Order: sequence, then C-alpha cells, then structure tokens
Amino acid sequence: MLDQKRIRDFGVRIGDMRTGERNAISDVAEVTVGHVTLADGPTQTGVTAILPHGGNLFRDKVMAAGHVINGFGKSMGLMQIQEMGTIETPILLTNTLCIGTASDALIRHMLGDNPDIGHTTGTVNPVVCECNDGYLNDIRSNAIEADHVLEAIASASDMFLEGAVGAGRGMSCYKLKGGIGTASRVFELDGAGHTLGALVLSNMGQKRDLTVAGNRIGPLVAARDKDDSLPDVGSIVVVLATDVPLSERQLGRIARRAVVGIGRTGSFIGNGSGELVLAFSTGNRVAHYDEWAQQPMMRLREGDLDLLFRAAVETTEEAILNSMITAESVTGRNGHSRRSLLEFEELL
Amino acid sequence: MLDQKRIRDFGVRIGDMRTGERNAISDVAEVTVGHVTLADGPTQTGVTAILPHGGNLFRDKVMAAGHVINGFGKSMGLMQIQEMGTIETPILLTNTLCIGTASDALIRHMLGDNPDIGHTTGTVNPVVCECNDGYLNDIRSNAIEADHVLEAIASASDMFLEGAVGAGRGMSCYKLKGGIGTASRVFELDGAGHTLGALVLSNMGQKRDLTVAGNRIGPLVAARDKDDSLPDVGSIVVVLATDVPLSERQLGRIARRAVVGIGRTGSFIGNGSGELVLAFSTGNRVAHYDEWAQQPMMRLREGDLDLLFRAAVETTEEAILNSMITAESVTGRNGHSRRSLLEFEELL
Amino acid sequence: MLDQKRIRDFGVRIGDMRTGERNAISDVAEVTVGHVTLADGPTQTGVTAILPHGGNLFRDKVMAAGHVINGFGKSMGLMQIQEMGTIETPILLTNTLCIGTASDALIRHMLGDNPDIGHTTGTVNPVVCECNDGYLNDIRSNAIEADHVLEAIASASDMFLEGAVGAGRGMSCYKLKGGIGTASRVFELDGAGHTLGALVLSNMGQKRDLTVAGNRIGPLVAARDKDDSLPDVGSIVVVLATDVPLSERQLGRIARRAVVGIGRTGSFIGNGSGELVLAFSTGNRVAHYDEWAQQPMMRLREGDLDLLFRAAVETTEEAILNSMITAESVTGRNGHSRRSLLEFEELL
Amino acid sequence: MLDQKRIRDFGVRIGDMRTGERNAISDVAEVTVGHVTLADGPTQTGVTAILPHGGNLFRDKVMAAGHVINGFGKSMGLMQIQEMGTIETPILLTNTLCIGTASDALIRHMLGDNPDIGHTTGTVNPVVCECNDGYLNDIRSNAIEADHVLEAIASASDMFLEGAVGAGRGMSCYKLKGGIGTASRVFELDGAGHTLGALVLSNMGQKRDLTVAGNRIGPLVAARDKDDSLPDVGSIVVVLATDVPLSERQLGRIARRAVVGIGRTGSFIGNGSGELVLAFSTGNRVAHYDEWAQQPMMRLREGDLDLLFRAAVETTEEAILNSMITAESVTGRNGHSRRSLLEFEELL
Repeated sequence: MLDQKRIRDFGVRIGDMRTGERNAISDVAEVTVGHVTLADGPTQTGVTAILPHGGNLFRDKVMAAGHVINGFGKSMGLMQIQEMGTIETPILLTNTLCIGTASDALIRHMLGDNPDIGHTTGTVNPVVCECNDGYLNDIRSNAIEADHVLEAIASASDMFLEGAVGAGRGMSCYKLKGGIGTASRVFELDGAGHTLGALVLSNMGQKRDLTVAGNRIGPLVAARDKDDSLPDVGSIVVVLATDVPLSERQLGRIARRAVVGIGRTGSFIGNGSGELVLAFSTGNRVAHYDEWAQQPMMRLREGDLDLLFRAAVETTEEAILNSMITAESVTGRNGHSRRSLLEFEELL
Repeated sequence: MLDQKRIRDFGVRIGDMRTGERNAISDVAEVTVGHVTLADGPTQTGVTAILPHGGNLFRDKVMAAGHVINGFGKSMGLMQIQEMGTIETPILLTNTLCIGTASDALIRHMLGDNPDIGHTTGTVNPVVCECNDGYLNDIRSNAIEADHVLEAIASASDMFLEGAVGAGRGMSCYKLKGGIGTASRVFELDGAGHTLGALVLSNMGQKRDLTVAGNRIGPLVAARDKDDSLPDVGSIVVVLATDVPLSERQLGRIARRAVVGIGRTGSFIGNGSGELVLAFSTGNRVAHYDEWAQQPMMRLREGDLDLLFRAAVETTEEAILNSMITAESVTGRNGHSRRSLLEFEELL
Repeated sequence: MLDQKRIRDFGVRIGDMRTGERNAISDVAEVTVGHVTLADGPTQTGVTAILPHGGNLFRDKVMAAGHVINGFGKSMGLMQIQEMGTIETPILLTNTLCIGTASDALIRHMLGDNPDIGHTTGTVNPVVCECNDGYLNDIRSNAIEADHVLEAIASASDMFLEGAVGAGRGMSCYKLKGGIGTASRVFELDGAGHTLGALVLSNMGQKRDLTVAGNRIGPLVAARDKDDSLPDVGSIVVVLATDVPLSERQLGRIARRAVVGIGRTGSFIGNGSGELVLAFSTGNRVAHYDEWAQQPMMRLREGDLDLLFRAAVETTEEAILNSMITAESVTGRNGHSRRSLLEFEELL
Repeated sequence: MLDQKRIRDFGVRIGDMRTGERNAISDVAEVTVGHVTLADGPTQTGVTAILPHGGNLFRDKVMAAGHVINGFGKSMGLMQIQEMGTIETPILLTNTLCIGTASDALIRHMLGDNPDIGHTTGTVNPVVCECNDGYLNDIRSNAIEADHVLEAIASASDMFLEGAVGAGRGMSCYKLKGGIGTASRVFELDGAGHTLGALVLSNMGQKRDLTVAGNRIGPLVAARDKDDSLPDVGSIVVVLATDVPLSERQLGRIARRAVVGIGRTGSFIGNGSGELVLAFSTGNRVAHYDEWAQQPMMRLREGDLDLLFRAAVETTEEAILNSMITAESVTGRNGHSRRSLLEFEELL
C-alpha cells in the first residue's frame, strides 16, 4: 500500500485469485489496522491493533472462530471466542512478555467506552496475541506501556505499513527479518462481490526452509548468511477477515486452512513455534443487547466455502512473503541482527 | 484446617472415600497455597497462588492438562498446557479484570528466578485463572497490584484459609457467599498410599438450585433471602492435584470429571459462567533442560483411573461446599451483600 | 407414554420445568422413535432408530452437534457432524459389535431413497451409536441383521416404549436393568412455546452409586442385590432434540450439559464407559441442494440458552430414571440377570 | 519397493532427510501392509490393511493419536484412539460405503483371536478409514466382502505395492490416478537410529493445483487433460508410524504436521474432502492385562520432536507423489477414467 515494494512487485505471484484493491485485510470494508513501533537500540518491539469495524465492538460483536495450529504460545481470548463465537474487542498483537500489560490496557480501554461492563453486564474478553521477539528485542524489559496500546488502536486506518513495524518490529521469519504482512482476495457469490483478507505477524521458521512460490531459496540464503541463533522459538499469528456472512463453524473451517499457506513458505511448524489463527466475519454481527430471543443470521452454502478456503491459503502465503520483503534489516539487542529478504532479491 | 468449621463438621458427608490428613489439596506432598485478601468497602477481591511444588517450576515442570467446561472466561495459559502437557509457573487465581496485571507480575516473578528466559531459552507460560467478582467488588477499579501477586506466592503454605479469602474474597456461589474451598481423598495403588486433592474458586449458580449432598435446599434458602442480582455471570475454577504419576492424557480425563462434582451442588452450568479445570501430577516431572532425548515417565493402568475419577468428583463437590460454609457474609460495592451458608445452617 | 409406569408415577420429580405432553423426545414436533427387540435366551439386544423428522433427511438435514463425554466407545458419524454441523440420516442405537452391520444397513437404506448418493453427489454420513450389552446379551453372536435396522426405521412413531426394548434390551444401568428412557421440557421464547426432549440408551454405573432425585439409594440396593459383575464397561448415549432454531455452536453447548444430568444419577463417568451426546434442532434445516450461496438461519440470543441448558440437564436425568423404572428384569446369556428398579420401589 | 518406479526415480527429491531402506512405512520395524484389489469393469476398489506389529494387537496395543484435518468423512475408531491413546486392531482402509462391512469383518477377526472380548473383558475398537472412490468405482454396489478384509490382513508384508492397489484402486488424486503411496525417513536420537514412515490413501485435489516439489504443474496437466468431474468430493488418509517411544500427546503433535505435506502437493483442503491422520509408535506398547497399576513408558524430549515433525511433513508429501506416479491409468464405472501421472512424466 503505502509506497512499500511488495512481493508482487518482484514478479512473485501466489495463487490464481484476484487481489482486492489494496491487497490488504483492509479491503474488507470497515477493517482497519494501527501500529506503534518502538525502535531504540535493544528495544525493538511494538503493538499492532486490528479493528474489525469502526463502531462499538462490545455492543456490536463480529462472529468469529479461532484455531490453534501449535499451542506453544500465550495468546489470550481464544477460549471465549470458541465458546461464544464472537470477538468483542480490537485484536492486539505484541511481544510475548507484554501480553499482561496489553490486555490490561485493552480492558481499561473497553471499560472507558462501556460503563456497563462489570457493573450492569458481564466482563469483556480481551483478545491479545503474541510472538516472541526476544532475539532482536530485549523482551525482558517489558517495554510496552498502556499508552502504546491506546495509540495503536487510535491510529488504526485502512492504509497501514507492513514489515518491521508495530508488533512486527522485532520479529524474525526464516531467521531473516519478519513482521507484519497482509494480502486479500476478491470473489463473487450470488453475483455480488466479496473479499477475504489476511494479516500475519510472522516470526517462525528455519533459514534453510524458506520457500517463495514453491522455489526453495532457503539453502542459498543460508549459504550467504550464516545462522547462529536458537532453534525455532518463534510463532505466527494469522488473522483472517471476510465480509461474507458465515457461521462460527464455517469461520473455524476457514481458520484451519491457514496452515497450508504457512507450510508453503517452508515451515514444518516447529515445536517451539506458537501458531494461532483467528477468523472473523463483518457480515454477521451479534448485538450485546438484543430485544428478541431469536435472531436472524446468514450462513454460506457449504460447497462455496471452497472459494474462501482457497483465498485463505493464498492470502496467508502472500501475507507472510509481504511481511518479509517489506521489512528492513534490523539490529537490536546484543548486536543481534536480521537481514531483510530484500538483500536476497536476486534469489526471488 | 485452620480452625474453620467445614462442611463435615455439620454432618455432611460427600462420597465414600477417605479424606487426607488436612482434607485439602496440600495433602498432595509439596503443594502449597497462599492468599492476599483486599477487603475495604467497595474493594472485595484478592489473589490466590497454588504452587505445585516448592522448587523452580520453570526448570522442573509438572505434568498437566486442562479442560474447559464452559469457555465464557478469560483464563490464561491453557493453550500451552494442552500443547505441551506441563505447568511451569504457580497457578494464580484472581478477578477477571486483573488477569493482565496478574500475568504481568507473574512473568516478572519468573524472569527474576530464571535469567535464561527470553534470552538463552524461550519464554514462560503464565497460568492465571479468573472469576468475575463484580457483584461485591468494584471490579472496574482493578485493585490488584503486582506486589499482591508476589505476596500471595511468597506466603504459600500447606496450611491455608478457605472461604472469603484471597481470590475468593468477592466471589458469590449460588448467590450466597462463595470463594476458596478444598478437599482431598486418599487411596492405594500397588500397595502404596496416594492422594488426590481439589481446590476451587467458586462463583457460579442460582440460589434456588443449591444442593447439599443431594438435598436441594436452594428453594428454602431463596424463600428467606430474596435474590435481586443479575443472572449467572459467574464462573468456577477447579484445580486438581495428585501425586500419582499420570500421562497428560490421563490428567485430562480426570479434569473432565470435575463437572460431575459441580453439577451435584445444583448448577446446570449457566451460559455466563466461565468454568475451567486444571489437573497436574507432582509424580511426573519434566525438566526444562534434559541431557537425553528419551525420558522415562510413569503412567497408570487405565482401569485404575476409576479411583481417581471418583476422587475428583467427590473432592470437587466437597470443595465447593467448603468454600461456602467457611465463607463469612460480605458486604461490598454499592452495599451489595452475600450471606454465608452458615446463616442457613439448620437447612443442611 | 404407552401404559408404562414412569418415574413421576412414583412421586419422583426432577427439576422445576414443565414437561411436554408425552414427556418424551417426540414432544418435539416430527421426531419419532422406532424399536426392534430381540429377546431369546442368550440373545438380548436390539435396534432403536430416532428420526429427526419424517421427510428425506439427506435432502433436508437438521442442524446438529455432538459431544464426547468419555470416548471409550465406537459410535460412528460424530466426526462429520462436528465438521458440517448437520445430521442427514436417522440416528441408530444398537450394541457395540453390531455397528458395522447397522451402518451398512443404514447406508443401503439411504442409497435406496437417494439415487444421487455416490453417483452425482457425495456420500452419506451414517450415525450409529452403541453401548455394550455383553453382560446380558451374547454380543459375540452379532445378532442384528440389516432387516432389523430397516424395521426399526419403518416402525418409528411419536408413541414408543421405554425400558428393555430396542437397543435397550440388553443394557444395564447401575447394574440394574437399563435401556431406553425419555423425557421433555417446554418453555417460552418471544412468547411462543418450545420444547426440548432427551432420549437415552443407559448402560453405565456402579450399583452403590445409584441416586434418585438426590437420594443415594445405591448402597441399600447393593445390600439386597449382590453384584458380581465386571467393573463399569458400560456406556450411555444421550440424544437431545429441540424445535428452537440454534446454531451448531449453540447445540454443542447444550450437548455439553447432559453430563450434569448423568452425574446426578450417581455416575462418576467410569473409565470403561463410552459416553456420547448428540443434539439437533428441527428448527434449522440445511438443504442438500441450495439455489443460493447465502442462506438465512436463526440463532438464539445467547443468554436464553440457560433455559435450554436447564432443560437438557433435567431431561437427561429424568430419561435415565425412566429407562430404569420402565425396564423389566431380564435374564440372558449364561443365566446373567439384571433386576428392575421396580423391585426396589420402596426405596424411591 | 517391488519394481515400481517411484517419484525419486524421476529425479524428484522431497526434503533433506535420509530415507529408510525401502523408503516405506515398513521401514519401521514390524509394520506390515496388505492389499486386496478388486478391478473388474465398474468395480474398482479394494481394502488395505496396516498392521502396527505382528503380534496380538488387542493384548499388546500401540500408543497412538489421531487428528482430523477436515471431518467430511466417515472413518471409524478415532474417538477411542483419542480417549485411550492406543490402537488395538489392524488399521483398515477402504471405500466410504464399505466401512460397515469392513468394521464388521474386522470385529469378527478380532473376536476370533480373542475369546475374552465381549465376554470377560470389554469390546474392541475397530479402526477403519475411508475415501470415496465413487468416480471410478460403482461405490453403490458395496463390493467389499468380509473375506476381502481377512485376506488383506493375512497378506500383510513389509514389501507391498503402491498405486492403484488395495483401497487405492479407485481413488483419484488431483483428478489423476491416486491411491496408496508410502515413504520414510531415518534419523538419530541419543546415538541410535530411528525411523518415521508414512502411508497415504490419496483421493483429493483439483487438477490445476497439482504441485510437485514446489513446481505447480497442474495448469499444464489440466490443459492436456480436460476435467469434467465433480468438485472435490475426495479425501486423504495419512498413517504415520515410528519406532521412537512417544506419548499420546506427542503423537498427536506429529499427526498435526501432516497437513503441511498435503498442502505442498497443491491442495487447499477442499470442503468435501475428508482428511484424517493417524500416528502410532511401536516403541510404546500398552498391555491389555497389566499386573501393576503403575507402568513405565518413554517420552521424547520435546525439542527433538522437530526431527519427527520434519520427517512427517517430508514423508507425507513424498507418499502422495509416490501414490500418483506408481498408479496406472484406470477406467471404471460409466467409462470414467483417471490418467496416471506417468503420462505427464515430462512435466516433472
């Protein structure tokens, strides 16, 4: 989007489907994304906020589902998403050890907008996902503060940066620089246009496994860039959004396809890599206060999910590649550095 | 234990099995429990810490499993427990809106004891469970601070109070006063003595459903104590501990029996009630740093689980009743109050 | 229903809610049940068929969910119910070793009604649930034949017998005679009447644990009726039906409450007891062939589920007691016998 | 193995790890495979049996886990595998509508070897997995008979055919000919050699998606071979075996990696494709009759699972390609035919 060269600008094409206008999760109407980036010596971290829509999310929840690919992670909020089938806050992404701070700030933010929470109605379910950026970032310093969370939410826009920004600032992907990436696909149902978008926080993989559109360039990269870091203690968070009205079960089925897109970039889903997928639909909303017991909603004819499954796989793969190619090289804690995939452009 | 009259002291007997010496989760060797209680006007809340053993839990993890009975809750840490089969921190209980603060404090506590976390090894999985005490407690004030968490951990002992203490301070159970309760059972395997213990944080149920040892006294209680509060927006956390060496799968099977004990006290597991069970074995440990790839462990002959299943059901039911009968009446936020089951002693 | 004395006729009342007209799963409009019973010396077994409605179930599926309480069982069809959220065949109940025969007969029955299956459309998902009646029945003789299945389906009616009939013929419950039982509850939503019904195939439990409406009569029964049989190698299948339009997720939540009703009859959910719950709604249908990609459906305001949760618990408990009190004493294989709960009427 | 040209013989290499001697699941000591193939006009189907070891599987079970990738399938036995962590019969593969016949035959086979089943001990859990071969095979004719099952079991050997044999006879993969394929990888742990092997029954995918070692040849294939068949109503079954002693949880983690191997061959896991993974370890056995309550077992240091994860991904991908390249072109029902990948050799 914002003047960053993306993977398609290097002639790499993932899949068959057409992209949305921005080729971003914000092609799904109303979805916005905001970042706060901390980049100062050993502090290389941040917060990213994804807003499913611009209204009061607690009062007007989006239908949602989650899927754990590999549960070596500390993300919060999944249990209630699975039970209730909704997301009712912005989705925060940050580093692993700051989930406490981030969830606390998010709770306070929600309390501010909703005086009923905890007094005349129940509590709120903060959704905070994380990856471990401890190689580049001094994660033990817990650099994220409450104001960073509020600022990330306040700055959300349909135009946003990718790469080494927000929660992606300190992340590594295939031991190169990773971070935030996004992509989208458009398609028709009953003659009307629809969109599915993905946003990833990429932080997983071994260098030798990196694969771009089926081309395993990892061994060539590894030959030029000696890798002396820890085994894979990374993670990936994938957020899928669509405007197609879907049931919670159908959203769960879509979430379970993201792993195929991840795997095509080379990862075998390492032991230490927390991998989590959230999927939501802006097309099915659930009001916190309803007048009637029975509520209409829409679901998709099951066979048509194939379109959305294909879109989920394509966008996840492309978003990961975008997260890498848009990320600048970063040096952080202890002089650790991760080089940008851009430095290996000729291998693409 | 500590000079509190418990449900057995009123002639109520749950099940057939023999209790441990204290009839408490701390009958499982090495398990200890600590509380910090905040009781000041509208602030009626606290923290409870359960330590699976007295050593370095990150380096010497206990085998564990979890089970979600009703996922309308915000507890943290379950995803990694399920994936990795271990618990590696103290288990914290607190109010819903303080999970951010509590997990942040727990992370910092773990960092303090383990300089390797986040630098030369991966991160740590904080286990923080919660119930909503917003009826008695001004939950929106987020009264819990980091020092409360550290103090709860530091004060852990095999002798501890039940009732309106620690995280239980502001909790309601069957719209009477609930909170912390515990119980244990002992039995023999291969000729050696073993123990299973439960600790609950009770906060669920409608008054009219309260049932004590099969005797539904709820309607009589309700007739005397008019109930004008919200529908069930409660929760219950059940922690089961045993010294029997069990596999993660076997611990999961035990965790799935706790719901029977809950149901016998009258609850039908309401929509708004977050209900979660954790189970761990001190008899199977997992070292963070192992010399050999292959590690011996013990599992139980499957049929013998029946003994532990029965113990899990009996201790969960008795722990809930103990949490009520030991709890004093409490008046908190907005003059809201919950009466003690003790005031209805003649109905037992 | 059919001139059998049921548990309410002995003054036992389970819960607060009103029963439907028949106090049976067939109070849910269109739901019917049919039995074939084989009772001849060592052969004490049968088939029970539950039809969610009277039309073509493959073309007009009912929304559904399932829940495994204890997976020590061989029931078929659950995987696809969970993935697709529908049931598309009659639900068969039979003995464990006859699931192959029963599913084969059910497949052939569905092929007969649907020439498209396997040729111009996909296959069909037979739902066959089982319990082990091997104590009374010579289960190794595989007595069920295809015609029995077809006859059970053909004979389905809204009036049907309970007790030692159909699949319940050889089942044991608390080491007394178990089998088929049913119950229902009615309630209002948005001013209109609705129904939830349960049908159980009961086959679990230890004699000493039997509890009727909170009154543990098991030890008294055991004192009079020496028990020399195997440990609990039983099972229970619970089928819940409602006319309230619910999403698959909501049906799953209801299914997860049945365990509370089971537990109140005394069981601690033994190791060897396969326990499974299916729930379906006749109020949300899914056509096999749809003209439009987007389909309307209804869901329930989440808080109103409390009514259905309470109904699920009450009907499950009452259906189990009905399965026992309506069952005659049976003597089968090797002279093994199970006495009817009726013989202990004075303990109720 | 048996004089069939496999994917490596065409210069295609999947992954980095070394293969076992046969590059087959039977490189895991004691694992054998047997086929019965029915190929006669419209009947193009069969049975494949995988024996985890050569002894009495009911008395000497192997530790196991399963994972559902996409539950649009009718496979049997998974529920008990998940609950109990063991497999206690041969694993059968066959066509969808013959699971009833196959499970019935398998039950009778187990009864024959074990006179205690159903009389003095519990029942047995038959494991029968299926794919829909209805495009080539007249699946409505239910051609499989009990004797075919027994013959497949009796013929099991460490040397066995791949391709259009056994259960694979009528299967389609990427709308070319699919079927049975296998592969293995070897590695060291604590200085000793170990093996992980995969066997697949491949039946999924759209032609245009076919990808061989990252090279998407599907569009070229589709250009030459017009595809007029149904949307993806296929499936894939993946069976993973290893001699490394692993816990049930660890086996489950390995099973969850197979989807990456599937995805690399091009599939996006279609709506109508039942996809299931079983994983077992011959290195941890569970005796049906144990003398002692406490049983030793071995588990793997968690980080070393990375080796097995990589092996699971590599072998699954290679086994799918082997299933295609070894399969001859087949013409069956209604003149439907599937061409062999061999006919497109120059695209590899």
